[in-house]
Amino acid sequence: MTTVTLTTDFGTADGYVGAMKGVIASIEPRARIDDLTHEIPAQDVQAAGYALYRSVPYWPAGTVHCAVIDPGVGSLRRAVAARAENGQYLVGPDSGVFTLFCPPFTDREPEAVELKETRWWRDPNAASATFHGRDVFAPVAAHLARMILDGKPDLSVFGPPVAELERFDLPAPVEERGGGYRGEVLHVDHFGNAVTNLPERWVIHAGGQAVVEAGGKSMPVVRTYSDVAVGDLCAVVGSAGWLEVACRDGSAASRLGLAPGQPVVLRATSARRGA
Amino acid sequence: MTTVTLTTDFGTADGYVGAMKGVIASIEPRARIDDLTHEIPAQDVQAAGYALYRSVPYWPAGTVHCAVIDPGVGSLRRAVAARAENGQYLVGPDSGVFTLFCPPFTDREPEAVELKETRWWRDPNAASATFHGRDVFAPVAAHLARMILDGKPDLSVFGPPVAELERFDLPAPVEERGGGYRGEVLHVDHFGNAVTNLPERWVIHAGGQAVVEAGGKSMPVVRTYSDVAVGDLCAVVGSAGWLEVACRDGSAASRLGLAPGQPVVLRATSARRGA
Amino acid sequence: MTTVTLTTDFGTADGYVGAMKGVIASIEPRARIDDLTHEIPAQDVQAAGYALYRSVPYWPAGTVHCAVIDPGVGSLRRAVAARAENGQYLVGPDSGVFTLFCPPFTDREPEAVELKETRWWRDPNAASATFHGRDVFAPVAAHLARMILDGKPDLSVFGPPVAELERFDLPAPVEERGGGYRGEVLHVDHFGNAVTNLPERWVIHAGGQAVVEAGGKSMPVVRTYSDVAVGDLCAVVGSAGWLEVACRDGSAASRLGLAPGQPVVLRATSARRGA
Repeated sequence: MTTVTLTTDFGTADGYVGAMKGVIASIEPRARIDDLTHEIPAQDVQAAGYALYRSVPYWPAGTVHCAVIDPGVGSLRRAVAARAENGQYLVGPDSGVFTLFCPPFTDREPEAVELKETRWWRDPNAASATFHGRDVFAPVAAHLARMILDGKPDLSVFGPPVAELERFDLPAPVEERGGGYRGEVLHVDHFGNAVTNLPERWVIHAGGQAVVEAGGKSMPVVRTYSDVAVGDLCAVVGSAGWLEVACRDGSAASRLGLAPGQPVVLRATSARRGA
Repeated sequence: MTTVTLTTDFGTADGYVGAMKGVIASIEPRARIDDLTHEIPAQDVQAAGYALYRSVPYWPAGTVHCAVIDPGVGSLRRAVAARAENGQYLVGPDSGVFTLFCPPFTDREPEAVELKETRWWRDPNAASATFHGRDVFAPVAAHLARMILDGKPDLSVFGPPVAELERFDLPAPVEERGGGYRGEVLHVDHFGNAVTNLPERWVIHAGGQAVVEAGGKSMPVVRTYSDVAVGDLCAVVGSAGWLEVACRDGSAASRLGLAPGQPVVLRATSARRGA
Repeated sequence: MTTVTLTTDFGTADGYVGAMKGVIASIEPRARIDDLTHEIPAQDVQAAGYALYRSVPYWPAGTVHCAVIDPGVGSLRRAVAARAENGQYLVGPDSGVFTLFCPPFTDREPEAVELKETRWWRDPNAASATFHGRDVFAPVAAHLARMILDGKPDLSVFGPPVAELERFDLPAPVEERGGGYRGEVLHVDHFGNAVTNLPERWVIHAGGQAVVEAGGKSMPVVRTYSDVAVGDLCAVVGSAGWLEVACRDGSAASRLGLAPGQPVVLRATSARRGA
């Protein structure tokens, strides 16, 4: 069994996603089709990157993830397919959406190709100038699923190798002179948790009595939401390994006015800080 | 064929649902995965309970319904799996979300266990403190699906029995002294229909000329929306067996300012009322 | 493999869609179930018609598309099943939702029947007066999928033939006296592109230097969004073959205040106009 997952910023109401699914089902009926999400904010490559980062690693090897968030559709940006660590396949525009499957987040660059061989497109002679999701990415994902099901996946047939995929800039957290680490909000999730770029290892370094400062407030770093009272602010290491500012049973982002880019500082409160 | 259905308040945009699907596909590739909904309002256990009540009974026996609406994640609330009437399996936090699959809505308590056997979790040694959907509920649902596909479902392997699942309070309608029945709005649906706690059998008792009072207006109880003119208010017995206040081709909730908890009175208008 | 696709205006949060899926899985477990969309605006038959038009043609022959947008549920409007061009099956209320699968958009009227044979309904004696999606359309779609899987699809068993399906009025663009073509906005999509009723062939007639006037502005007709600068307005032939007013990396509809029904004029700017 092989699944083609779909991640887009299309919403579903217009029928664009339905067209992509139909193309896949027409080319390779054995492939399953499953939605990761179609609710990525329009052209928000970073948000899509984080969503993929939270989902893709949990799928079985040989899954094809087709992600179409494409500010540059119709321009000269590349269309790509890649093989990431753990045997996950990625298909989509080279818009930066696969940033978190590249170094320094992985040990090595994924094997990648540019989708120049038009014989794998829906209509080699007339790919729509506006809808590459339907005309390029869905067909390539389906053909790739077929090769995987037949035990012969070969990216090289789709086009020439790509040395390095595009990345978006992921801001780096820094160690502060006076002690502690300064990061920033990367992303606010559905529950109003503000995911930061402060990695779990720094939280461990900061020690057991760490506090976080964000939005003008200070809050304890705890193991889980229920370590604080309902309505209280806290910081926890989220499920993807980054420090998150949270509010138990509430929205930290609206309480603190947090949005991507706002500073978050992690400080130790005791002598246990070190390393 | 066995399906694992998913019901959450996660939305899809953050990739949390995609992670759960990946975990299930990794553990039991033969299981289908289908979305019931990910649009339950955040931590609204009642709304999830009604959604499950409207969906679950129509699935074939041996379907696994994984429902993660979990205000208490990380706290001491139990994680459970249960077998409801008609052979439906339920997996999720014991947050009350399965209320409508317990007495008095069913004849007997579902067979239920607490998910204490960590060997069925994604990583027995390190379940995330914040994401039980991915690390506990999805793996248990997938293992349960495998047992069902192999013809040997056995809840007892997952942990010790639970005598009684948590319930939320479902307000009881009452018979009024002056005649008629007083209930309240439980839930407002996508179309603005206000679902009440007045059951179908009371509507039958009230007789053919019954009226409903809600939001300061009176409206006839009819068989179906089109028994009144476009834009008119009415009350109908909804598809789940409860009286609903509706507006033909419009939103009764916004017309009448209805929200959960607001009173709804059912009265007979003729001598036919009785029983 | 045969898929039943679902298109509704139900949203997913209430559990109505989950009930339809359960009914289908119970009747024909071999059929796949896939969502086209549940986000059609409430009772917007036109929006559903366009979404289906963009999705259905790309599916393999023998797919069953169940579309429930039903302003007239419970009234005397017909319930229908039909076989469209390319072997696509359509099941739903005869509300006009299948307009674009009928002449003049196709060469001939689809073969269609009225769903009067109640033995194919969920409960032949008691179809709910309010939820035909669950009680009529999902069961018929599932039975039809079974017949297709068994190689014996036969619409006539479901009821008597229907000579002509209902249509919504699709406004016709007109040639203007002073030259050029006057159309209107049909639909605004998720990205704020305003899809018009001006067909591709008229754009070709208008020639390479054509301009479009909409919302008080004039903009060039280009091949693809990236032919203009970021933030600039343009008009392109969209993926379904109609002229669209667009804004590169932005929303043309909010920039220009466009909504369905507003005029859009296509003009040639050079002597190349002709034919």
